Amino acid sequence: MKMIIGFFFLVVFCSQQLAAQLQDESAIRQIYDKALMEGKSYEMLEHLTTKIGARLSGSSGAASAVMWSEQIMRKYGFDSVYLQPVMVPHWVRGKKEIGGIVANSKKSGRVPVNICALGGSVGTGTSGVLANVIEVKSFEELAQLGTANIQGKIVFFNQPMDRALIHTFSAYGKAGFQRRGGASEAAKYGAVGVVVRSLGLNLEEYPHTGSVVYELNIPKIPAVAISTSHAEKLSFMLMKDRNLKFYFETSCETLPDAPSFNVVGELKGSGFPEEIIVVGGHLDSWDLAQGAHDDGAGCTQSIEALRIFKAMGYKPKRTIRAVMFMNEENGLRGGQEYAKQALQKNEKHIAAIESDRGGFTPRGFTMSASEEVKNKIRSWKPLLEPYGLTDFSQEGGGADISPLASQGVPLIGFLPDSQRYFSYHHTPEDTFDKVDKRELELGAASITALIYLIDQYGLK
Amino acid sequence: MKMIIGFFFLVVFCSQQLAAQLQDESAIRQIYDKALMEGKSYEMLEHLTTKIGARLSGSSGAASAVMWSEQIMRKYGFDSVYLQPVMVPHWVRGKKEIGGIVANSKKSGRVPVNICALGGSVGTGTSGVLANVIEVKSFEELAQLGTANIQGKIVFFNQPMDRALIHTFSAYGKAGFQRRGGASEAAKYGAVGVVVRSLGLNLEEYPHTGSVVYELNIPKIPAVAISTSHAEKLSFMLMKDRNLKFYFETSCETLPDAPSFNVVGELKGSGFPEEIIVVGGHLDSWDLAQGAHDDGAGCTQSIEALRIFKAMGYKPKRTIRAVMFMNEENGLRGGQEYAKQALQKNEKHIAAIESDRGGFTPRGFTMSASEEVKNKIRSWKPLLEPYGLTDFSQEGGGADISPLASQGVPLIGFLPDSQRYFSYHHTPEDTFDKVDKRELELGAASITALIYLIDQYGLK
Repeated sequence: MKMIIGFFFLVVFCSQQLAAQLQDESAIRQIYDKALMEGKSYEMLEHLTTKIGARLSGSSGAASAVMWSEQIMRKYGFDSVYLQPVMVPHWVRGKKEIGGIVANSKKSGRVPVNICALGGSVGTGTSGVLANVIEVKSFEELAQLGTANIQGKIVFFNQPMDRALIHTFSAYGKAGFQRRGGASEAAKYGAVGVVVRSLGLNLEEYPHTGSVVYELNIPKIPAVAISTSHAEKLSFMLMKDRNLKFYFETSCETLPDAPSFNVVGELKGSGFPEEIIVVGGHLDSWDLAQGAHDDGAGCTQSIEALRIFKAMGYKPKRTIRAVMFMNEENGLRGGQEYAKQALQKNEKHIAAIESDRGGFTPRGFTMSASEEVKNKIRSWKPLLEPYGLTDFSQEGGGADISPLASQGVPLIGFLPDSQRYFSYHHTPEDTFDKVDKRELELGAASITALIYLIDQYGLK
Repeated sequence: MKMIIGFFFLVVFCSQQLAAQLQDESAIRQIYDKALMEGKSYEMLEHLTTKIGARLSGSSGAASAVMWSEQIMRKYGFDSVYLQPVMVPHWVRGKKEIGGIVANSKKSGRVPVNICALGGSVGTGTSGVLANVIEVKSFEELAQLGTANIQGKIVFFNQPMDRALIHTFSAYGKAGFQRRGGASEAAKYGAVGVVVRSLGLNLEEYPHTGSVVYELNIPKIPAVAISTSHAEKLSFMLMKDRNLKFYFETSCETLPDAPSFNVVGELKGSGFPEEIIVVGGHLDSWDLAQGAHDDGAGCTQSIEALRIFKAMGYKPKRTIRAVMFMNEENGLRGGQEYAKQALQKNEKHIAAIESDRGGFTPRGFTMSASEEVKNKIRSWKPLLEPYGLTDFSQEGGGADISPLASQGVPLIGFLPDSQRYFSYHHTPEDTFDKVDKRELELGAASITALIYLIDQYGLK
């Protein structure tokens, strides 16, 4: 009799498991159908990139993007939509930006090269910087050369991204030091400016901007990026003539901090409203282009996730929150403010998801979380693999959600295919036409599917 | 003592296994390095697409492509390079190609729409085709309507590709019937022409060409593709006015068969030269564009595989053969001729690999083979997964290699990401700039890595 009762409960348990699995499969299929057949992410992205365009923190574009995000989330009828004020750095490029190689011989004039100021850099003033050039590939090399060889010169950082790496973000990670820290490091030895090889994998004509970070109590020297193609040219010309000079002039400057906002939209949980799942991207983008992959894609995918739930008539158990973070590119003030307020309000975030690797075909998710949480997410692989989500192996979350880590929030990064990202990243090429509609939509659906599973089962 | 000897042999066996694994890992890493750091696939593709361009069977472009393929493989120093003659169909589009919706009311004139003749279609003659339109989505619907409703009309096939399917080739497979067989099926009921919705997933302005296949003893009626965007428009206008007419004029025609060639390059095997591994793509491409993804990518990746082996100094055990097949698009004569000659010469092909799904990021390989062979290939997954090759689940080989199936040759298809393929397939958009350098190179490396493993271990 006991055995029969035991068997009975086993059957009941198994059929419940099976029913749950079928229900999940069906919900996820519905999510992808909504995204692919009636999706709005692509038209949202079109508006954000082609109607609003560049939106660096403090710019009028950023202000328009804030207004638009608020309006669109209200239009989709989210339970609450609100702004979270935050003061942001306000750097402007100005009008002048020229660079050229000045060969020693009087016969040859100045050879123009494609440069752009690095974000946050000081400008050169109208007289520009004209100096000899010393090429290096690492900070170690810089230290070996020392002040004697560097004083009064322009340091040319020319370490290419490693094309042999399959994951392009690893190559970016390895080569990023020169853009971020190169100026201060060179200034320690008396350099008067830095020219940094653009962080792109291919030979391109256009430069890549991105933040330079000045160290405290080190002179701030002007920093520019040079296109990879012209970095090769400069290096080649230096081999032939060590005494050539480089000239550049930039008119960028940092204005006083400006008021801005994170934009938050929410679906209230029906069962555990105090448990929050946050999904976001950053609303700000570099001034050179439309910020389509970086990170218009992540913003519109985040809004789309909540819109899909509403369109499905899905009532989340937990509170699901889409956040358009402000100022990821040159300060991270939005992400910091969001985490600060979460702490002050004693909010309980059970997961934070960021999409900031472009609107490409989904491959999986990265995670910065306990092994327990990682394994729980990996246990959902059978439900996600049919949609091409196979990679759950890499560490990582996202810049904007990273300040939540100290509150013990599991961080998750949406992981799309990375091969094309660094052809567009921080360049004039990061435009709407570089985003494929289906790839963007599949990303939105993948993120939504993961949120659905976290909402259903939590992460404990 | 026996145990000790047994243990000794176990240790020897294990270290041999380990050494083999390390050697394979290192060889595969070297293959990817060669492709990504010193690859030639991209520059080959640039030449084939921008210097030669469209190369439909029988055209001067196809003839130039044959010459170029032969020259480049000789230049790379393959052991033997030769042409395999084959007669191919010679269809030409001609100069005239116009289509328009003729509304019934006299006020509105003709609304121009974007059409193109389907490959192999008869032309309309200079008087064109002007007739009422009947819209259908299936052959069943056509049969239900019958001759009474179809006689004298233009049949408009408007079954969209299913956007909800994750694998776009499945959507292509499901919707392809109307382009291939629609004309003959409609002619059975007395239709005077067919207008077929382009096989694209998104709303686009440009039409997609592709082969129409006429059945024997059924009148050949002219067939055109209409852009997806204009298919929607036509459908919408038909809803409002069932009596509107459609007009189209095409000047395409089929000329007598023309002489052409498969182009073959070979590295001779050092151990088992009689065992052949063939890798290929098709050299012909539709006349509307440059044939970059379809299938310049597959051709240059195949040549690149052999080039990489030479560049590595790798001496294959088996004979590795790159074949640029002629006439995949409208006849498959090259593939058939190749298989016929293989049979006549009693050649022993141990594997045939085709790359004809575009130059996108690698996801895995499809297989049409015995379970034993499939499992052997799947056993190499740990070596290939670090490079993003995770999908070994789908059935399939490739059109050009399919005639080898009857000789029992295991067929393998290179499987890249499929999301963007049908935005370019058979359209004016299939151009060099749509191919990403790294994605193309990763594909070449992936194919080369698989060939390496087959060469090392065979498939038995």
